[in-house]
Amino acid sequence: MTGAFARAAAAVAPPDPGAMADAVELQGRLTKPAGSLGRLEALGARLAGIAGECPPPLPRPAAVALFVGDHGVVARGVTPWPQEVTAQMVANFCGGGAAINVLARQAGATVVVVDVGVASELDDAPGLQRRKVRAGTADLAAGPAMTEDDAVAALDVGCDVAGELVAAGARCLVTGEMGIGNTTPSAALIAALTGRPPVEVTGRGTGIDDATLARKLAVVTEALARHADQVAAGPVAALAALGGLEIAALAGFVVGGAAAGVPVLVDGVVANAALLVAAALVPGIADRCIAGHRSTEPGAAAALAHLGLEPLLDLGLRLGEGSGACLALPVVEAAARILREMATFDAAGVSEKHP
Amino acid sequence: MTGAFARAAAAVAPPDPGAMADAVELQGRLTKPAGSLGRLEALGARLAGIAGECPPPLPRPAAVALFVGDHGVVARGVTPWPQEVTAQMVANFCGGGAAINVLARQAGATVVVVDVGVASELDDAPGLQRRKVRAGTADLAAGPAMTEDDAVAALDVGCDVAGELVAAGARCLVTGEMGIGNTTPSAALIAALTGRPPVEVTGRGTGIDDATLARKLAVVTEALARHADQVAAGPVAALAALGGLEIAALAGFVVGGAAAGVPVLVDGVVANAALLVAAALVPGIADRCIAGHRSTEPGAAAALAHLGLEPLLDLGLRLGEGSGACLALPVVEAAARILREMATFDAAGVSEKHP
Repeated sequence: MTGAFARAAAAVAPPDPGAMADAVELQGRLTKPAGSLGRLEALGARLAGIAGECPPPLPRPAAVALFVGDHGVVARGVTPWPQEVTAQMVANFCGGGAAINVLARQAGATVVVVDVGVASELDDAPGLQRRKVRAGTADLAAGPAMTEDDAVAALDVGCDVAGELVAAGARCLVTGEMGIGNTTPSAALIAALTGRPPVEVTGRGTGIDDATLARKLAVVTEALARHADQVAAGPVAALAALGGLEIAALAGFVVGGAAAGVPVLVDGVVANAALLVAAALVPGIADRCIAGHRSTEPGAAAALAHLGLEPLLDLGLRLGEGSGACLALPVVEAAARILREMATFDAAGVSEKHP
Repeated sequence: MTGAFARAAAAVAPPDPGAMADAVELQGRLTKPAGSLGRLEALGARLAGIAGECPPPLPRPAAVALFVGDHGVVARGVTPWPQEVTAQMVANFCGGGAAINVLARQAGATVVVVDVGVASELDDAPGLQRRKVRAGTADLAAGPAMTEDDAVAALDVGCDVAGELVAAGARCLVTGEMGIGNTTPSAALIAALTGRPPVEVTGRGTGIDDATLARKLAVVTEALARHADQVAAGPVAALAALGGLEIAALAGFVVGGAAAGVPVLVDGVVANAALLVAAALVPGIADRCIAGHRSTEPGAAAALAHLGLEPLLDLGLRLGEGSGACLALPVVEAAARILREMATFDAAGVSEKHP
């Protein structure tokens, strides 16, 4: 690899321990009992580490990148939703009517929609970036989902989008995705990269029935058996064999955002699968990410545990699009604001507790 | 009782089942898999039921009422914080430097600070309402914390504040409180009203050490034994015997908000104790409330389970002030916006899944 992704991967450094220590010290002087803001305190320290300064900057404005792709594996009957819904939802995203549009508007975040692999040709639309690598993947249970060149091209697209959004002023990136069938490749990647058996990480996605779930589990199991050599060969080969174009782009997006020095707020199971790929390629990348929520899809919890990330929200969501991460944006902002705006005991003239 | 609280209590009706059913039906037509927004969908239906219309109005602007009181039980060594911190924190709240000020500003919520029982006389300050019922409670382990007349007066103060905030335009009320020592009466009330043993509901509050926790548990146990007759006599007698002035005011505030038809977003363990009192006086009141978060204090989970409320957030907070409820405000707003702003399958031209 020599493109945008490779350059960004080389540029990712660990969070700044000095800024993190400064945040911990400052938290101890703010007018509240030590530790009483719980996970907001650790989150504030992480933001300081990512930015390399304490107090950390506000994560505003935030930008959601919604990567969209189709999946050849839908031919196996893993979902009751017709493939054309992917393209129809792109129109809905560009028209502002989807859940992610509502949630991003409320949070003051912009949404860009990136066609990195929709099966059909899309017309121009407001907010749509046409960066198709190929018109959907092949059936991952019959052969590789895509070539390694395709996977690298999608990594580069995601990485470029991250860099462009930060250059345009974004101070927090939010992962978004959509693609009918995409919890199947996500389950396969999570099984491959965590070593968990397919049955533990394959779930009902949009809410499939028992018969469809049985087919989906069989497909994931078959794909892992077929592509064992590619999984052993390394993360890019595994991504090409089992993944999706929007999943590859998300992995690139995470690395691009980390290299640009902004926090990356990660959504549900599809983004968790992408982050596993990114972490296999760029160890330590998860330290520059924040898990927005825990999807009900079982692979999400498995991936987050493997990555050592504790999600901020657990609201029973399983929509994707970036919806859960977007809902967590105010929590991230609050963690920064606490460090930036709260008074210290000294400044407020408040007594501390007896030793 | 014949005051504001009694009138409000008589005016509280169950949420409107028709509006709730309309919300459920509308959720099914929005461009997302059925149920995929998880708890946001049930929350949207609750908001519709509370408002009596679907889609529900936005919970904006929101107002935090921060009731403040002192506690005679601090003489028992249940906290290492000096009692003067209560009054010092009032100055910090009015100066905008406390955590709740930061979180409320971010959420676009106003904060009113209500002295319902601070031990010392307070000077006028911006945003401070001087409605002191008495200068702190008596030691609840030695006798009743206050008289029943005091308790009713504080219920009326809280109820009046709720009505005034709604009259001034608030469309969501957020419970806030502060008072050195107030997790001790909260634990006692939670034990009394849920029937749980003190050891299961008494926690470390601001982060007390083992010796202080042992004293606190002994005090709660002693208080429950001493006031068994009052607990048996009913909720107002129990509140007077075991409670606090800010806890009584919070119970009144919840009922006042419910009677005014707006959602009441409930904070941590102290507010949970108050809501138990309110629910004992006005059965069904919890259906008009939303639990903002689960405090780490063990009484919080016990009270919420008794009330049948599942909190929205679980971030390890134990600060009080309304901080956890304020952090949950964007989730509440999102639930309303989803119903108000998302496109339906028909309107967006998106295909539904195969049957």
